[in-house]
Amino acid sequence: MHSSASDLKENNLLETFIGIDLGGTNLKAGLCDSNGRVLLKEILKTGTSDGRDRIIKDIVELVEALSTRAGEKTPVRALGMGVPGPVDFAHGVIHDLVNIPGWEEVPIRTIMEERTGIQCFVDNDVNVTTLGELRFGAASNCQNGICLTLGTGVGGGLILEGQLYRGTSFSAGELGHIIIVKDGPQCNCGNRGCLESFVGNRYLVERAVFRIQAGEPSLLSGPVREDPGGITPVSLQDAALNGDALACEIWKETGEYLGIVLAGLVNVFNPEIIVIGGGVAGAGDLLMEPVRRMVRACSMKVPGKAVSIVTTQLGIDAGIIGGAALAMEETAGKN
Amino acid sequence: MHSSASDLKENNLLETFIGIDLGGTNLKAGLCDSNGRVLLKEILKTGTSDGRDRIIKDIVELVEALSTRAGEKTPVRALGMGVPGPVDFAHGVIHDLVNIPGWEEVPIRTIMEERTGIQCFVDNDVNVTTLGELRFGAASNCQNGICLTLGTGVGGGLILEGQLYRGTSFSAGELGHIIIVKDGPQCNCGNRGCLESFVGNRYLVERAVFRIQAGEPSLLSGPVREDPGGITPVSLQDAALNGDALACEIWKETGEYLGIVLAGLVNVFNPEIIVIGGGVAGAGDLLMEPVRRMVRACSMKVPGKAVSIVTTQLGIDAGIIGGAALAMEETAGKN
Repeated sequence: MHSSASDLKENNLLETFIGIDLGGTNLKAGLCDSNGRVLLKEILKTGTSDGRDRIIKDIVELVEALSTRAGEKTPVRALGMGVPGPVDFAHGVIHDLVNIPGWEEVPIRTIMEERTGIQCFVDNDVNVTTLGELRFGAASNCQNGICLTLGTGVGGGLILEGQLYRGTSFSAGELGHIIIVKDGPQCNCGNRGCLESFVGNRYLVERAVFRIQAGEPSLLSGPVREDPGGITPVSLQDAALNGDALACEIWKETGEYLGIVLAGLVNVFNPEIIVIGGGVAGAGDLLMEPVRRMVRACSMKVPGKAVSIVTTQLGIDAGIIGGAALAMEETAGKN
Repeated sequence: MHSSASDLKENNLLETFIGIDLGGTNLKAGLCDSNGRVLLKEILKTGTSDGRDRIIKDIVELVEALSTRAGEKTPVRALGMGVPGPVDFAHGVIHDLVNIPGWEEVPIRTIMEERTGIQCFVDNDVNVTTLGELRFGAASNCQNGICLTLGTGVGGGLILEGQLYRGTSFSAGELGHIIIVKDGPQCNCGNRGCLESFVGNRYLVERAVFRIQAGEPSLLSGPVREDPGGITPVSLQDAALNGDALACEIWKETGEYLGIVLAGLVNVFNPEIIVIGGGVAGAGDLLMEPVRRMVRACSMKVPGKAVSIVTTQLGIDAGIIGGAALAMEETAGKN
């Protein structure tokens, strides 16, 4: 168990909340106070576990360990969990998980409540981190906002009238699958020309590799010759920061695609904030500058003036803090 | 005053509401009961009036006449007004009006309340008709929906969690200015490649005229030679219904552009309903069939299954009923 247990003793709040972040690589669990501070946390590899039952057992054990450490003075009120896939939020059922096989229609809320005795809430990971940013991060006190996660996939969460908006069948926020070019490149989702197929990890790397292999000069020409599969957004970021024109252009293009879609969403939602996070967002101004420029250029005057575009604040603990925020949200004012 | 006053006598409800629909061509005002039934209505031309003060005087006189007819047994509780332009809803101030000069920053709510003594609410016309469809029309009892108005401009209104969603600075719902083709055709708004520049009245007619003038065969070749400016969406509708291949293709294209954008919005909002209205929607299945087909093809499975796509129900009185709905909404449960 990671240290920071001293925080726990100093904390006089009566209730604590557990946030769980189930990802394809790691399972993270943390104990938070009602201000969204992480008091204790634990990380396990999910890659090494063998199947669903083992992962559930791991989660239960983490919850029990955190709950014991929380003790009687600061008992755990509830737990919130984010998972990488679509969820029936009302019933706490996971429809399926991206990159983790064997999770079709799993009533995880009931399972967790039966095994741990603690009230449990579950939602998809982007909604959970959006709630974290809304309650304790970059979107604190915002009424209307959009959170965007850029990585292998492109996910989104919507804050409307100060609440997380889930939609009619809890699937709202799929910003990555807005089609931006009719009959465009094949996307992972089966469709063509989705935003994700222009700004997702794999696709922006592919565009760079394709151009380098076609003979365009780049600092990455050598690495591409050796192992094109080894190129990552981080390689492109480093190359761009070292002045590589092609890498700079790839980031500019990526930011412009994203900016045009965000400008449309600014016109549709009139949000006060757009929060951008995820691995690709690590490129910082290489990405954010063209995003901001396109949003300014392509959104209408009134909504364009109302919106700020920022990066996430919660960092690597976002999933834990978001999970705890979900647990707080759903138990607030209830016995 | 149009007849249907007999309705008024039969109506036992204690309160009535006035809805006002200010357009570039007509000023419509109606008295409605709390079920959204139009009891009395009056239409004036706005084109013939000379300036803002005259229009305001007309509106005040219509309100006074309707209010007098409503009488003491069914007094007017409040009035709601829809106007063709952006509005500061909280303060009841019109920022400006499309196609009606001289309306910059007009505090219409205060003006109307001072002159008529009746509580007044004002919003842009698409929001007002969206509210009408939500309370008394195609979106009755819906929690999440999108209303789209297709005409000279393309406007939109959003219903989220059973309420009209206005956004941070009351400008939400500008669906017509989502950019669908980077560096596409010039749009009326100053940008390029907006949805409106593909499916707005003028633009879809322009595409047809351009192709006919370039020599493609069409039933409209004669009319285009005589007066290309005389071609309208209705001409294209008639030609398509008479089997004209080019006209059919224009409608198919238009529906497909619209369908792709709506598919994106289905993925983002996960709505249960999309309501399409306005002049261009008069083309019926010529437009709706490709729209529905593209939404089915391009939206994700879960949100795609949840949504129905329908045409408006309120017809020519939509603005009056919507205005009355706004007045009801804002006074409900208040003294």
